[in-house]
Amino acid sequence: MPDNSGSLNVAIVGGGIVGLIMAAGLQRRNINVTIYEQARAFRELGTGIAFNPAAQGCLEMIDPGLTVALQKGGAVGLSAFNDEEMNDCLRWIDGYNQRQPDDPDYQKFYLKTDAGYRGIQGIRRDHLLEQLTKLFPEEALKFKKRLVSIEDNDHDDQVILTFDDGTTATADAVIGCDGIKSKTRELIVGPGSIAGTPTYTHVNSYPTVIAMDKAVSILGETKAKAFHNHLGPNANLLHYPVANGTMCNVTVFIRNPDEWPEDKPTSLMGHKADILDHYKNWNPVVCKLIDALPDQLPTWAVFDLWEYPIPYYNKGRVCVAGDAAHASSPHHGAGAGMGIEDALCLATLLSEVGLTLRQGQASKFNALATAFKAYDASRRPRSQWLVNSSRRICDLHQQEEWGDATKWIKAETTLEEIRDRTDRIWNFDYRGMVQDAVADYVRSIRQHKHKSI
Amino acid sequence: MPDNSGSLNVAIVGGGIVGLIMAAGLQRRNINVTIYEQARAFRELGTGIAFNPAAQGCLEMIDPGLTVALQKGGAVGLSAFNDEEMNDCLRWIDGYNQRQPDDPDYQKFYLKTDAGYRGIQGIRRDHLLEQLTKLFPEEALKFKKRLVSIEDNDHDDQVILTFDDGTTATADAVIGCDGIKSKTRELIVGPGSIAGTPTYTHVNSYPTVIAMDKAVSILGETKAKAFHNHLGPNANLLHYPVANGTMCNVTVFIRNPDEWPEDKPTSLMGHKADILDHYKNWNPVVCKLIDALPDQLPTWAVFDLWEYPIPYYNKGRVCVAGDAAHASSPHHGAGAGMGIEDALCLATLLSEVGLTLRQGQASKFNALATAFKAYDASRRPRSQWLVNSSRRICDLHQQEEWGDATKWIKAETTLEEIRDRTDRIWNFDYRGMVQDAVADYVRSIRQHKHKSI
Repeated sequence: MPDNSGSLNVAIVGGGIVGLIMAAGLQRRNINVTIYEQARAFRELGTGIAFNPAAQGCLEMIDPGLTVALQKGGAVGLSAFNDEEMNDCLRWIDGYNQRQPDDPDYQKFYLKTDAGYRGIQGIRRDHLLEQLTKLFPEEALKFKKRLVSIEDNDHDDQVILTFDDGTTATADAVIGCDGIKSKTRELIVGPGSIAGTPTYTHVNSYPTVIAMDKAVSILGETKAKAFHNHLGPNANLLHYPVANGTMCNVTVFIRNPDEWPEDKPTSLMGHKADILDHYKNWNPVVCKLIDALPDQLPTWAVFDLWEYPIPYYNKGRVCVAGDAAHASSPHHGAGAGMGIEDALCLATLLSEVGLTLRQGQASKFNALATAFKAYDASRRPRSQWLVNSSRRICDLHQQEEWGDATKWIKAETTLEEIRDRTDRIWNFDYRGMVQDAVADYVRSIRQHKHKSI
Repeated sequence: MPDNSGSLNVAIVGGGIVGLIMAAGLQRRNINVTIYEQARAFRELGTGIAFNPAAQGCLEMIDPGLTVALQKGGAVGLSAFNDEEMNDCLRWIDGYNQRQPDDPDYQKFYLKTDAGYRGIQGIRRDHLLEQLTKLFPEEALKFKKRLVSIEDNDHDDQVILTFDDGTTATADAVIGCDGIKSKTRELIVGPGSIAGTPTYTHVNSYPTVIAMDKAVSILGETKAKAFHNHLGPNANLLHYPVANGTMCNVTVFIRNPDEWPEDKPTSLMGHKADILDHYKNWNPVVCKLIDALPDQLPTWAVFDLWEYPIPYYNKGRVCVAGDAAHASSPHHGAGAGMGIEDALCLATLLSEVGLTLRQGQASKFNALATAFKAYDASRRPRSQWLVNSSRRICDLHQQEEWGDATKWIKAETTLEEIRDRTDRIWNFDYRGMVQDAVADYVRSIRQHKHKSI
């Protein structure tokens, strides 16, 4: 007996920031959602994450409650906290050695990109997570569930998920938001496929926070309270306010030409001494800021899916989103935003699936598989572009030319490209994205129906 | 006694395509123009040059007679010649080995960018030159004039040009359109400056034309009559119709990791055998096309100003435009177009200078120097971007990934970037460019006047 109620049960694998935002979007569209998380509880670092204009617009369309969650979590404009600016912006400046003899602290201004009023907001990850978890009833969150396999046969009514504790769960569809090491992705592309293999980007990231007072004493008020990216050869460093402006989030990036040992954890505790060496010839202001960082700080070996992207984000009633689909290095600060765009696309498409089912226009399997295909077509080109672009922008941020006086003019000719790439992320027509994806889905459903008649 | 007639005499150094178009724009604005060319006569190859939508729009604003010259010279749409398409477009396809076992000639389609109706037109360089020279009275064209020096002192009424035949000429201002080896550029940046040193791009270019019938017999009608860029590892090849569609312009590019010997000419006659080796594993269709090229063909070692761009395009009453300012590799097919944008900017600004002088708002020296400063500010970021982007797009066209089956998916993720870069060139707001440059100039003149009062 066909189920024409249009009700859907969706399993989300992974309870990170994108998984929870995805779940919020489904829940708001009356889709039943269960989140399966492998850890004992949700965890996030106390370091910052930023949402650009496109990501903020998507959050509002996914669920206006998410915008409220941002505010409650202490989100602040990345530069509007500075009284001199109404709009948020990013600023790129010389972090190295274009010093004026009479002012060694002088840092040449390179580029500013304007994001509009409250255009980019920064928040601590742990504060955001705390707000997000409040959106769900306890029974929607299942912990200690490490995915082992997914069975998805078109003759079965349900997809079956098996976990490593021996339990199983069923769902109408599965969305893998399980990050760069995604098990869902592995099940989509098949075992042993090289597609989806994370590789080392040869950059290490050191994210941390310091008190804003401290940052102001080193950088001065104007610089400390606005996003600045300090550029130089083989490294760069950025900072922006978080926690209602009481803290300054600092992220240090360092190029590492060596391979990352396979048996070494990609996330570990490192020492400030590891950073100091790479910055010793930098502008004195940058050196003072690094001095002010804690002696121990988190170290991330940055991996991404640039070398071996997956050829599709979907298979039957299973798909991947966020880092699971397109793990990017963090140099655009847009990785989570890209996952949020995915979430808006999927939430809207799955809402359409409900309509299709209530109108009896397709089987549940066909409707879901068609929706995920439309999702793949809509999202893959842009999100794969980001993976590429983040690598490229890092090359530009850290180009050796910044350190060579005969190459400064050349290096500055690349600022136009940094601006373009930022614009492409921020000025995304996400309303158009949703409209096109739905149109694609509806066309496919109609054509399919037509054929089977 | 100040000259308030507003009349201007401008010397253009170099009678290439951009120099002549620049001269046409000045002449149309009632500015006296003299072109000094070092050769005995104008010369151009019989190979193709293409004008994108931005370049065509600028040509029309510089002088509608230039649009007529294009038509008279046999310009044709780069793909609209093919009856299946109303609009012009560029197409990128696999030139290497993504063969289908049952169809070895199959070339996977990668990307198409739509330029609109007659959006990109191709013409033989020699045919265009023939039309352009008809626009000028004989006395405006001076041959065998190799520039040696320019004297430009603000206390002199005129700039003095000296040529290697010992003669001199005077002008109110000088525009150097003297190409990548520009003498004018050298005089702007000063002797011994590394800025403006051309460097080898490690790519050789082989431009030639074959009969369209021959191209159709190899590529088929649809492919032969529309622009196609065949991509593969360390090389690429493109073709498009010229000469009213009777000829097919073919340009072969090959990466060369070696240095180019300093004493070897950068333009010489080469042999088809030099190409064959690099293409031996390519798609059979591409191999057949290369077989059909003449045994001897022009070889260009591609040099550009990427490594050592100049920090400004102007000094006093002297400036550079086109390749002299921003010689780019040819991978966007937009080098001449960028010079045409320069010409529109300069022609409009110099017309404003006439107005300033008639109104007595500034000295001739100040008005001209201010106009050239506004020109530099307007044109340098975009044209330097092109030099960078052309290098980058070549890297993408010729990436080794095209030849490695495990990297095809990765390679295809870069097509978005190829599209973006093409869009940025084609969708340029040249009317906005002119408006902003004039506003910048007028503001500077007013501020200057204000100060001196």
